[in-house]
Amino acid sequence: MIYDVIIIGGGPAGVAAGIYASRQRLKAILITKSFGGQMARKAVAIENYPGFEEISGLDLIKKFEKHLKKFTNQQSNKAQIKIESDLVLKIKKTGKVFSVLTSNKKEFKSKTVLIASGADPRPLEVPGEKKFIGKGVSYCTACDAPLYAGKDVAVIGGGNSGFEAALFLASWAKRLYILEHSPKIRADETTQQKAKKTGKIKVITSAALKKVEGANFVESIVYQDNLTKKMVPLKVGGVFVEIGSQPATSFVKGLVDFSERDEIIIDHKTMQTKTPGLFAAGDVSDIIFKQIVVAAGEGTKALLAISNYLQKNG
Amino acid sequence: MIYDVIIIGGGPAGVAAGIYASRQRLKAILITKSFGGQMARKAVAIENYPGFEEISGLDLIKKFEKHLKKFTNQQSNKAQIKIESDLVLKIKKTGKVFSVLTSNKKEFKSKTVLIASGADPRPLEVPGEKKFIGKGVSYCTACDAPLYAGKDVAVIGGGNSGFEAALFLASWAKRLYILEHSPKIRADETTQQKAKKTGKIKVITSAALKKVEGANFVESIVYQDNLTKKMVPLKVGGVFVEIGSQPATSFVKGLVDFSERDEIIIDHKTMQTKTPGLFAAGDVSDIIFKQIVVAAGEGTKALLAISNYLQKNG
Repeated sequence: MIYDVIIIGGGPAGVAAGIYASRQRLKAILITKSFGGQMARKAVAIENYPGFEEISGLDLIKKFEKHLKKFTNQQSNKAQIKIESDLVLKIKKTGKVFSVLTSNKKEFKSKTVLIASGADPRPLEVPGEKKFIGKGVSYCTACDAPLYAGKDVAVIGGGNSGFEAALFLASWAKRLYILEHSPKIRADETTQQKAKKTGKIKVITSAALKKVEGANFVESIVYQDNLTKKMVPLKVGGVFVEIGSQPATSFVKGLVDFSERDEIIIDHKTMQTKTPGLFAAGDVSDIIFKQIVVAAGEGTKALLAISNYLQKNG
Repeated sequence: MIYDVIIIGGGPAGVAAGIYASRQRLKAILITKSFGGQMARKAVAIENYPGFEEISGLDLIKKFEKHLKKFTNQQSNKAQIKIESDLVLKIKKTGKVFSVLTSNKKEFKSKTVLIASGADPRPLEVPGEKKFIGKGVSYCTACDAPLYAGKDVAVIGGGNSGFEAALFLASWAKRLYILEHSPKIRADETTQQKAKKTGKIKVITSAALKKVEGANFVESIVYQDNLTKKMVPLKVGGVFVEIGSQPATSFVKGLVDFSERDEIIIDHKTMQTKTPGLFAAGDVSDIIFKQIVVAAGEGTKALLAISNYLQKNG
């Protein structure tokens, strides 16, 4: 059995591609451990996916997943998309056929592959970080915020995701610090205003985190003030990391080129990587903007490009 | 008053850009005669905008418009987006400032412009077409289908939009012909299957429409069979035109380059045209795939690129 397309990933890019693959009646399989991608890490309501004025990440994931799965059980539609709960370990290309190997030791063959595996949170890489993971250091506000009720908490990263994390935490935490490495805040104005209104979020710019300290649980952090070069200690009971992401690409080395941010370089018009038949879309690619609606659009473009590729290449 | 950005168009690209412009608190104005763009021409339910398993074009437009307008009346948000019901006639650039002139003889000035004006239906350009517009020749199935109850009707164009138009018409028309110029149907398999199931749609490939005839109203068409070269008459009471679209770009000549399909050529990573500060997104651009979710994603990318441009250029 050789598929027309293997879609790797269950975030907005992968799901959008899956919906279009089904409607194109391609022999398609979507491999993912879980659905949601960047939506799963949204701690505050999503207000910028056009059509939904306000919806939680979890609810939007459910709608995406249900929409995709509509095409897995239509009796009248022979070319259903198969959904496989698994993790991709390796992609190989032999001749014109791709082989995708998974952690369940399965092998899937296909004429094309769409990588839509998204990106994972980027770690701080400072002393103490690893030691306190799950003991005060968190990469998932939506998951862990309630554990910090009444505590002082630091959010590392002054972009939109850092501010959004702080806003979400504000319902639980006593006092919040947002530490931003650069001298300027990168979050959009609306989000900054909202943060100001809470009255409990303090923003510290030009602050380079140096270490995370404590006994059994995080008790404090130390950052360097980039302007005065002074080391500044800060008593906090928790550290939320929001400094961007690392594309999930370990399985594809050799077949694609990478940007300096380790994203897969694609042709932004055709969505193809340097390997014919191998496409990438969404946060895993070197697209500049990482947004849900953007990823959904990119996944759609990639699947339609794959459809064209299949018509030309058999 | 100089705006940060003028958005031209009320389709999915323009509305998505408007939502993001508001959230970025840019001084923004969106100019459009109506909302909807390609959504307004959808005759059958939309089943491929992720998050909505099935929704009418009209309902999705309403959701988009309401989502955008949420940001026009928030008292707490000083940087509201202004919506202007008007038609853009001309864009000029003087120094670093754009001037946008409208049919209501207004002039708006801005640091950047996003063209998201979409595309209009492409005409047949055969004898009789113009004469019978509104008298049997239609470019809007959703608007005109009920007028053809009990009649035999031809749809020109065998792509998805042609098949979708025929499916919609099938609720009214007695018998339907889909004429496709090329030897192969371009519509996706799912849509072709649905057409077959109606039992009243006949597909004619390799058929080049030559003329539309009648007295006061369309009575017949004549097409050439591209294989036999024979002229074939067909009695129909209506002709629906679904042969693609023409980008709405007359107002921007001189500032951008055009593709061979008259689309605005953009850098697909930065969304910028050849004129700094002038961006384009969606069906008006030389993007390959014209889909609602793609246009929404592209509008978002363009607005975020504009935000970056404004930060650098002031």
